[in-house]
Amino acid sequence: MTAEIICVGTELLLGNILNKNAQYLAQQLANLGIPHYYQTVVGDNVTRLKQVVEVAIARSKILIFTGGLGPTPDDLTTETLADLFGVPLVENPEILEDIARKYAIRGRVMTPSNRKQAFIPQGATVLPNPAGTAPGIVWSPTSNLHILTFPGVPSEMQRMWQETAVPYLKTLGFGQEIIFSRTLKFWGIAESALAEKVSAFLNLPNPTVAPYASRGEVKLRICAKATSLAAAEELIAPIAQQLQTIGGLNYYGQDDDSLASVVGQLLQQANATLSVAESCTGGGLGQMLTDVSGSSRYFMGGVISYDNQVKVSLLGVDPQALIQEGAVSSTVAAQMAQGVRSRLGTTWGLSITGIAGPDGGSPTKPVGLVYIGLAQANGTVQTFEHRYGQDRSRSLIRHLSACTALDALRRKLLDSQF
Amino acid sequence: MTAEIICVGTELLLGNILNKNAQYLAQQLANLGIPHYYQTVVGDNVTRLKQVVEVAIARSKILIFTGGLGPTPDDLTTETLADLFGVPLVENPEILEDIARKYAIRGRVMTPSNRKQAFIPQGATVLPNPAGTAPGIVWSPTSNLHILTFPGVPSEMQRMWQETAVPYLKTLGFGQEIIFSRTLKFWGIAESALAEKVSAFLNLPNPTVAPYASRGEVKLRICAKATSLAAAEELIAPIAQQLQTIGGLNYYGQDDDSLASVVGQLLQQANATLSVAESCTGGGLGQMLTDVSGSSRYFMGGVISYDNQVKVSLLGVDPQALIQEGAVSSTVAAQMAQGVRSRLGTTWGLSITGIAGPDGGSPTKPVGLVYIGLAQANGTVQTFEHRYGQDRSRSLIRHLSACTALDALRRKLLDSQF
Repeated sequence: MTAEIICVGTELLLGNILNKNAQYLAQQLANLGIPHYYQTVVGDNVTRLKQVVEVAIARSKILIFTGGLGPTPDDLTTETLADLFGVPLVENPEILEDIARKYAIRGRVMTPSNRKQAFIPQGATVLPNPAGTAPGIVWSPTSNLHILTFPGVPSEMQRMWQETAVPYLKTLGFGQEIIFSRTLKFWGIAESALAEKVSAFLNLPNPTVAPYASRGEVKLRICAKATSLAAAEELIAPIAQQLQTIGGLNYYGQDDDSLASVVGQLLQQANATLSVAESCTGGGLGQMLTDVSGSSRYFMGGVISYDNQVKVSLLGVDPQALIQEGAVSSTVAAQMAQGVRSRLGTTWGLSITGIAGPDGGSPTKPVGLVYIGLAQANGTVQTFEHRYGQDRSRSLIRHLSACTALDALRRKLLDSQF
Repeated sequence: MTAEIICVGTELLLGNILNKNAQYLAQQLANLGIPHYYQTVVGDNVTRLKQVVEVAIARSKILIFTGGLGPTPDDLTTETLADLFGVPLVENPEILEDIARKYAIRGRVMTPSNRKQAFIPQGATVLPNPAGTAPGIVWSPTSNLHILTFPGVPSEMQRMWQETAVPYLKTLGFGQEIIFSRTLKFWGIAESALAEKVSAFLNLPNPTVAPYASRGEVKLRICAKATSLAAAEELIAPIAQQLQTIGGLNYYGQDDDSLASVVGQLLQQANATLSVAESCTGGGLGQMLTDVSGSSRYFMGGVISYDNQVKVSLLGVDPQALIQEGAVSSTVAAQMAQGVRSRLGTTWGLSITGIAGPDGGSPTKPVGLVYIGLAQANGTVQTFEHRYGQDRSRSLIRHLSACTALDALRRKLLDSQF
């Protein structure tokens, strides 16, 4: 029995609001193990709403509506459904009483238009709305078809979902099986390359494995269907283990892990501290590191050496190197990393200098050219050159630079464990 | 001729990601005056995608797809469309060359699976992707039906929309009547307070005025419908002028302006420079400032003094003040601002120290307590205390802190102009 989400509202078609309801309901359906293959958005229009419902009935058995339950004339979900199934609307005295009571509490007078909200299709059951005036319905107009309606206001919809819809869906036998997923995260490998390496896993029936990519990061989502969380985890664990092994050093963490949180854990395991020197990222690397609560245990701080003078005065970069090799060079990256490490007295010093664009590039040093420096306690310093390409945005080049710097340190910390 | 948005991706059905692409495209269609009555989301499944396209063809003449253009086997939008219309896929040498070139720039080797992205239906035209490897197509498989495909990555999709899809849609005759909007931005006033002040404007027919709020910022969107951009701007200008006047100093800019870009303009007008000293924001203030291209003209850099030792060693904060008043105090904020200003030799020095949480709060210094310091060339320093409340997230407290620091400087720079 599969579900379909139908969101009703012209404001969605105009792009005035983001459809967060669809995402919430999608997650909830997954948790209950209810397959869900389609989502539709349609405006406040009877003809088009009817057409959408007719299409949905032919392919789905549980229809979940959001929106169109309010008191105004353009709220027409309930009427349209009743009309479509040839059932009259009947006034429900409990709803009427509930609306009147809620208006009284707020010191407002109920208007005739509110009375409209008390009419539901004959044979439907009220889905109470504890947080607002517009109730929904639960209705089986034909055998093996289940209709649930919710208001469009996310807070009301979510409370109704939890308090009344979930218990109802459980009486239909759902929620016995759950869908649980784990996401493995990789850095330093392209989506296509990783997908080829793990191609044998991409057609598994349960758990399924699917690759995603965004802003330089590649993810593999392992998704299991099982009768309990423990059973789902048991299905996932051996697959996750194999995928991690295939990913090798490119695998860095899972689910809520970030490169910064993983680096933080490795630093703490090694009893080590970190400082940063940033040019083109302008503080973005420090911000990523301090996004992690508790990062003060290993992150001491750093220098934003945006201007060359600051590279000299606060980091001790050689002015000759700036003149001869330029601020965006391996030499300057190395000196920045060493400078911040020695001045802040940390185990590691990590630096970034590059050209984030859109201006500032040259034929020999194009936009997207970035140097990362990594200085360590024994006095050695390594540098890494990256070319992110001139077709990427300033924001993306800065993001990739900070992530790649963290990744360089992560690999080094892992190396030193062996 | 109406459009339909079809978003392809199992990750949307699982609720893993929010469908921001649908909202973006909906807004864009509205701007071009293209009616759009349906949005559909479907997973990475050939049979169901075909069924969705068949439904869409019967009711819409412009089909806009996002997702399913990548190199992996579950990316199947292009193949499914070709199959549905009984047209073979042909390899496009330009795409192949473009992908190979992009891989070469990034120093990566193209894999056989990338080659898949170079196949498009016979008769289709390439919709170039300047920001990524997966191109889209523009295709009229039958008369009076237009198909446009985009990758699911929002940054790539948006650039393709602007650079190639809009010109194409204009050749079809769209965009004659336009919807044009301007967004006024405010900082330092609550949405409800601003909405009350401008309540007389909220029921205008054309242009319309609507308030929005997010993460501390309040916006008024003025939206006009007209036959030309100039006519729309003429409708908007007098309303914008009045709303700005009502907003007073809380109004800071419009559209693409950010607090950081406005501060940058004011600094340049005053021939002034800025440095920052950050504790709880850990680099976030520097990152905001350097998000602005060309910020090196007035932003010199700063110190991320996350650890107290760094406040002493790099900023000259008095160790006694740290012991007696604590790192989160007005005194330390003042010394941080003065310290970074004098060490970096800038006109202004801006500092932030606070408790971003979730840990580290106490009864006298709760989570959300933040001090901002602003030092100026004449030796004076001002501090500002803010209490953002313990129910806000670490991420939001850090964001509000950085924005409020910029806003403090903005107001000071505006003051000194008069």
